Amino acid sequence: MSSVQWLHQLRLPRSNIFEVGPRDGLQNESTILSVDARVELITRLIESGLRDIEVGSFVRADRIPALAGSGEVIKKVLAKNLPRAKDCRFWAFIPNQKGFDDALDAGVSGVALFVAASDTFCQKNVNRPLAQQKADVFALLEAAHRQQVPSRVYLSTLVYCPYEGVIAPEKVIDLASELIDHGATKVVLSDTTGHADPVNLARVLELCDAKRWSPDHFALHLHDTRGLALVNAEEGLRWGISEFDASVAGLGGCPYAPGASGNLATEDLANLLDKLGLLEGVSLKALARAGHFVEKSLGKRGPSKVLRTFAEES
Amino acid sequence: MSSVQWLHQLRLPRSNIFEVGPRDGLQNESTILSVDARVELITRLIESGLRDIEVGSFVRADRIPALAGSGEVIKKVLAKNLPRAKDCRFWAFIPNQKGFDDALDAGVSGVALFVAASDTFCQKNVNRPLAQQKADVFALLEAAHRQQVPSRVYLSTLVYCPYEGVIAPEKVIDLASELIDHGATKVVLSDTTGHADPVNLARVLELCDAKRWSPDHFALHLHDTRGLALVNAEEGLRWGISEFDASVAGLGGCPYAPGASGNLATEDLANLLDKLGLLEGVSLKALARAGHFVEKSLGKRGPSKVLRTFAEES
Repeated sequence: MSSVQWLHQLRLPRSNIFEVGPRDGLQNESTILSVDARVELITRLIESGLRDIEVGSFVRADRIPALAGSGEVIKKVLAKNLPRAKDCRFWAFIPNQKGFDDALDAGVSGVALFVAASDTFCQKNVNRPLAQQKADVFALLEAAHRQQVPSRVYLSTLVYCPYEGVIAPEKVIDLASELIDHGATKVVLSDTTGHADPVNLARVLELCDAKRWSPDHFALHLHDTRGLALVNAEEGLRWGISEFDASVAGLGGCPYAPGASGNLATEDLANLLDKLGLLEGVSLKALARAGHFVEKSLGKRGPSKVLRTFAEES
Repeated sequence: MSSVQWLHQLRLPRSNIFEVGPRDGLQNESTILSVDARVELITRLIESGLRDIEVGSFVRADRIPALAGSGEVIKKVLAKNLPRAKDCRFWAFIPNQKGFDDALDAGVSGVALFVAASDTFCQKNVNRPLAQQKADVFALLEAAHRQQVPSRVYLSTLVYCPYEGVIAPEKVIDLASELIDHGATKVVLSDTTGHADPVNLARVLELCDAKRWSPDHFALHLHDTRGLALVNAEEGLRWGISEFDASVAGLGGCPYAPGASGNLATEDLANLLDKLGLLEGVSLKALARAGHFVEKSLGKRGPSKVLRTFAEES
């Protein structure tokens, strides 16, 4: 029985880790992993017990060379017929209708889309104004809804934009409202620059609560730029959020967000959730096998702390 | 007005950072800083607004060469007559009565002592059985009490010992009780190996609470080995603890605790406390000047994340 007072008040049966490493983690790496290396990484992630994995991106290969061949990656993963894969959902980032069609053809189970609370950030990131990006995302959400494909929308620059500064929570709420109205399965509140803290994050979640939205509409995507990713995840738990994005070995970042460091590391998040009694079916040891593999493949260490406490298998 | 629900329930006017960098942070570094470099580091820490600084150690110079000349360090700091130094307390680690006398002669305002919940860890760390170490510490606490010198006792291996494994919370409570009975100003609950998490930490704090001990008797000394130091600090705040040890740039570790990584970084802790509205009189920018100085002096970067978000002054 836990002695953590706030933990008693949670009504979460368990929490969910949404693994973004094979997409968000790898997309800005200068070392490009082969299709087979990515298949092996995803295989190890599946074997660790994770159930939601973002496997790639259906953008033009010249825009993100590190993720070229994502269709082949997912096809090869599915062809392995891994026993645990039956319980997994495989997600891909899509920029437009063509990407949507290609992703579904390749066998992807869910689609990830991008918007931002900041117009300037949207412009810098996808080279088009927010109004236009929103219109396209709404159309894709409706297509996904019609075809019963689950959808996640990254709502970037949650509390801060590197170009516009502090983001008003009301702006986030208005955008979240539109996304929910257009059928988004999850709105992924994304702290792109690592400026979230328990206070500014709670301001957003309090407004969501006031709208009487179920916390199940939301996930948190946290960066550890200021060491607060796990503190913010706990704040999310207290407001009923149960899904958190994380990246194997803590890989990732954002080239359009100066100073942003890695994503919250999957191993670090899994360890905290495990200690809180909220992790189910995920093996930390098996996760470390995935982390060690991707670090070896990239020839570098990510910022995960818990991964360092596991000895590499020879 | 903060929207963090648990923050409303805190009755803390402010929190206190206890800076351990010039002692605990430097003691295991292979690069030895000169007396003047240590004086400059402490000067910058004073200028940042910190009020409690552990400046050195009065152990034999051949045991910890990095801290040789601690008496000279404190004398030189005091001779500078810095305006802010009047509001500071300067602490030193002492192993015995001779160290106690030397420290007070040099002008130290408070003394730091060591015990451990684990007998084996005590033996490995100070080369004597716990019973003998406790007897000496009790005698020193009584001497400090008689002379109205504030005292802090590091109660190490709070939840886990690298040699004995999991530590029963009752063991910690019994030892804390003896320390309080012998007049310790603060019992510093010390997570030597970074195994603390919100659940096992709360088990200890719940027992303290059940004893009706004031949380003011306690401070938390956290290591970030598994990325949980700030999460644990928040858990401490919820139980009324207001003082937290931290080390500039996140320097430090423990040679007797295999796998233990750096102390909680002062910059990271200060940033969180600032966001929670619990930091008073400490300048993050001035702290970064101290962090950059010590990193430059040691020729290496510490694990602090917030320090990386400040540009170095040329």
